[in-house]
Amino acid sequence: MTNAAYSLDPRLAADTLPVAEWPLCQVLLINDARFPWLVLVPRRAGASEIIDLAADDRRQLSAEIDRAAAALRRTVPCHKLNIGALGNVVAQLHVHVIARTRTDAVWPKPVWAQGTAESYDEADAADLIRRLTTFFAA
Amino acid sequence: MTNAAYSLDPRLAADTLPVAEWPLCQVLLINDARFPWLVLVPRRAGASEIIDLAADDRRQLSAEIDRAAAALRRTVPCHKLNIGALGNVVAQLHVHVIARTRTDAVWPKPVWAQGTAESYDEADAADLIRRLTTFFAA
Repeated sequence: MTNAAYSLDPRLAADTLPVAEWPLCQVLLINDARFPWLVLVPRRAGASEIIDLAADDRRQLSAEIDRAAAALRRTVPCHKLNIGALGNVVAQLHVHVIARTRTDAVWPKPVWAQGTAESYDEADAADLIRRLTTFFAA
Repeated sequence: MTNAAYSLDPRLAADTLPVAEWPLCQVLLINDARFPWLVLVPRRAGASEIIDLAADDRRQLSAEIDRAAAALRRTVPCHKLNIGALGNVVAQLHVHVIARTRTDAVWPKPVWAQGTAESYDEADAADLIRRLTTFFAA
């Protein structure tokens, strides 16, 4: 942990579109139309590992992961949720929540480091974000 | 969920060595000496997604993930923990908890579907399991 203020890692910022601000996390959509893929980033400066979060933050993170997963499953086709906290490339703590289908581009492999991201059409991204935020508000 | 009794998926059983039985999960060691890699399997018949667990089980799963992660970080070299619930191949709910180092065989890539598992020497596996279970008991 550092004393610096929280700021989103620039690599996460570059790869994502903003979706929502939750009590603990920034909610981002990975700009890759191949997979409906959210990333949750706790606004805690210097955080890198889930087990180093304070207990209250840890509980809140679980709740926010579940909320993101439920939203994806209700909003897009989803045969399986994939949830992961890796951070080997970007150390800033971030949790992936991805809706997978048996016909997606790399099924059944994990999505990370597979092929090249395909940016959303602007209207498609806006529509998906609108549907997700409508679910969140319900 | 089904009404069947819980039993460990035979593919998970084939790839792992038993480590411990916790209140919710079976704790298993993936038999791949390239990575210190635990898998937690909640003993809940038919469970596939974290968000479908009962609230008490969900809390317990978080606690057990954290316990496994802390044990690995204290027991083996670890630059980064990787935690994931995928289940694209084996649908039975299971959570990976992996200790990664910057010099491991596939860093910084995720471990799944990378190369071929290298089985532990029997004594090495027994030693690692002993160190983990000593940590668990402390």
